[in-house]
Amino acid sequence: MKDYTKMNILELQANLSNLQERYNKFKSQRLNLDMQRGKPCPEQLDILNGLIDCLSSEEYRTLDGTDCRNYGPPAFLDGIPEAKELFSQMLEVSPKEIIIGGNSSLNLMHDTIARAMLKGVFGSEVPWGKLPKVKFLCPSPGYDRHFAICEFFGIEMIVVDMKCDGPDMDAVESLVAEDEEIKGIWCVPMYSNPQGITYSDKVVDRFARMKTKAADFRIFWDNAYCVHHLTDKPDRLKNILYACKDAGNPDRVFIFGSTSKISFPGAGVSMIAASESNINFIKKQMSVQTIGPDKINQLRHVKYFKNMEGIRAQMKKNAAVLKPKFDAVLEILERELGGTNVGWWNKPNGGYFISLDTLDGCAKRTVAMALEAGVAFTKAGATYPYGKDPRDRNIRIAPTYPPIEEIRKAIELLCICVQIAGIEKLIKEKESYV
Amino acid sequence: MKDYTKMNILELQANLSNLQERYNKFKSQRLNLDMQRGKPCPEQLDILNGLIDCLSSEEYRTLDGTDCRNYGPPAFLDGIPEAKELFSQMLEVSPKEIIIGGNSSLNLMHDTIARAMLKGVFGSEVPWGKLPKVKFLCPSPGYDRHFAICEFFGIEMIVVDMKCDGPDMDAVESLVAEDEEIKGIWCVPMYSNPQGITYSDKVVDRFARMKTKAADFRIFWDNAYCVHHLTDKPDRLKNILYACKDAGNPDRVFIFGSTSKISFPGAGVSMIAASESNINFIKKQMSVQTIGPDKINQLRHVKYFKNMEGIRAQMKKNAAVLKPKFDAVLEILERELGGTNVGWWNKPNGGYFISLDTLDGCAKRTVAMALEAGVAFTKAGATYPYGKDPRDRNIRIAPTYPPIEEIRKAIELLCICVQIAGIEKLIKEKESYV
Repeated sequence: MKDYTKMNILELQANLSNLQERYNKFKSQRLNLDMQRGKPCPEQLDILNGLIDCLSSEEYRTLDGTDCRNYGPPAFLDGIPEAKELFSQMLEVSPKEIIIGGNSSLNLMHDTIARAMLKGVFGSEVPWGKLPKVKFLCPSPGYDRHFAICEFFGIEMIVVDMKCDGPDMDAVESLVAEDEEIKGIWCVPMYSNPQGITYSDKVVDRFARMKTKAADFRIFWDNAYCVHHLTDKPDRLKNILYACKDAGNPDRVFIFGSTSKISFPGAGVSMIAASESNINFIKKQMSVQTIGPDKINQLRHVKYFKNMEGIRAQMKKNAAVLKPKFDAVLEILERELGGTNVGWWNKPNGGYFISLDTLDGCAKRTVAMALEAGVAFTKAGATYPYGKDPRDRNIRIAPTYPPIEEIRKAIELLCICVQIAGIEKLIKEKESYV
Repeated sequence: MKDYTKMNILELQANLSNLQERYNKFKSQRLNLDMQRGKPCPEQLDILNGLIDCLSSEEYRTLDGTDCRNYGPPAFLDGIPEAKELFSQMLEVSPKEIIIGGNSSLNLMHDTIARAMLKGVFGSEVPWGKLPKVKFLCPSPGYDRHFAICEFFGIEMIVVDMKCDGPDMDAVESLVAEDEEIKGIWCVPMYSNPQGITYSDKVVDRFARMKTKAADFRIFWDNAYCVHHLTDKPDRLKNILYACKDAGNPDRVFIFGSTSKISFPGAGVSMIAASESNINFIKKQMSVQTIGPDKINQLRHVKYFKNMEGIRAQMKKNAAVLKPKFDAVLEILERELGGTNVGWWNKPNGGYFISLDTLDGCAKRTVAMALEAGVAFTKAGATYPYGKDPRDRNIRIAPTYPPIEEIRKAIELLCICVQIAGIEKLIKEKESYV
């Protein structure tokens, strides 16, 4: 194994020149590849055959006979009964603890915060927007679109480190216990974006039990990848809603989910789950905003998937498409970076991403070099609040969309860039000793 | 003709006792009819045969080849190009002046105001929510859901009277010229809800030209019924976006539209049109909220309607279903209330409603009596801000949903109740003179 950190300058320079030669060869290929987005590939959409046209001009009624083509009864503001039934099973809550939304869980999260700013959440004494300052904890690396919502609403973001079983709970607990301005935290608790980590039971319990200075503190639990397993031994996530109930903090959590990466992204179904008090509070607010989301599309999803078995079967087909892509990435990372001590990555059991750490200060340089050679990766820093990775080391790899041969090329190039940037840094450090 | 206002007490009492007998006969029928909602009837949905399943597992691409089953390119945040093309024609704007939304224009209106409260509109110096007070003008009778949005956000509503060609523009002009806290006005400019009035060119021009104290004043132009004609000689509405441009106030108006009463209510497509500056401002805000609305449903609509001719042909089929219902209402109103001087109504050329005025102070009593006899009408007062009709006289009739025989019964009963309430009032007035 070539541990660059143990090499002398001459050895490093020899490796660098070899890597630069490989880099230039890539550059001469004039690649034009995109590894930026957590986006399903066409093959994943093709195996949803039939979802698009599974209803007909004769089939448009819910089990209780309601015509989904028309405005629904007010009682359907939160979804048609069979959709609430199915997706409450997916999020492991009861149908009274869920609202089925439109095509985007991001939209639900945005609107939940917008309403909190304007009106507060259940139990708020003051709308968050009327307070001098609102802060959110942001375990990082995390999901850039969560951070963008906070930035948009002027919510100050506080970075909390991620550990191998979830956020640094010592930090979380001490921050929320002391600072009343901290009103929330963003979490992707299962197969996290980007590390693919699943929070341990202990972390979930600490979230449920911790003391918060703000009485209307909320956990934004974006369970986007709850059924997105890649292996037969999937991770397990403890149910936080019930943990919160058990801990005497029943209203602490908003759980979000969607079918964006189960059915069609952008034409799926989203959902929010929470305590009945939270749900009823939100429903009352939502009734001013809409008569209800697209019931026909909900019916389409229920008819296509039928039950949780149907969803699980679909996700197995998905895994069959995705696993080889993840394996290819991991194989090349191991081959190129294993033992080098200039790159570290995770091996997720599910989700949509692989997270790669470079030496401190090398992520931007790495991504820039890859882009110069024709491969776009997610912008370095994007996984941190305000786009600023304090150690400039995290790179998100999104292996789902491109064909496997493109992935192989892109990741090999990425590894070459990681090594070049890393070795350059090591040489500079050694030179500064001289 | 029986002009009740010209009768003496004995004549009034004779009529009253006759009407009460008829009322009691209705009551004994134990009706259970609902005339409350502006909701299409099943026949209107049946003539949309094919919309629900017009796409297939092979047909899911836009003209430019984009796969609508997947996340779209950022450029599609505002809709797929062919949907922007079609619906910009419907709202008579250019494709650069429109955003295609989700299934609900109410949702677009709500979110537009929510964002204005939190962030301001294009050109705002301060978010509206940071001001001590925000006021909206509410031409009334009007649409209750508009008023509910204002009430929800704590926006003070100022009633402006409706005339036969639009709002009382003398009042509007003098109010907006003097009061900086007035930030907006709600309008349903074509086949208005509930009167079925279309604003005259002169009213549109006055809206475009008027001086407003608030520099970031906005007209919320809910053009919900722009193609919802009932006759071959439809009303015409002057294009307010271009009138505003001509008047040097290009950013003054937000136009809203939807297919809720063209295709499937709750499973259609909504839209907002405005100046390019407004649209770009909103798109930037929207990019934080969503990756974009359901593109598959947009494609479905474009494929089904094809072009404006297709939409117009569909609305002719709709009119064929609705016209006999409106005619039945108007015939019974004329037969029962014509010349009585206790009830006045409009004869709309389109839209979804007929508006009935009773004698002052008689609307609540009328609706309550009808309900007691088994027919639910829209709550009296609902067409005014805070649910308070200052003269307690307006009743909204929604004739689209029930079968025509039910409509006949319901309207006859309503007319009996209008007369009873009116005569009771006239008798009381005469008695107080004695």
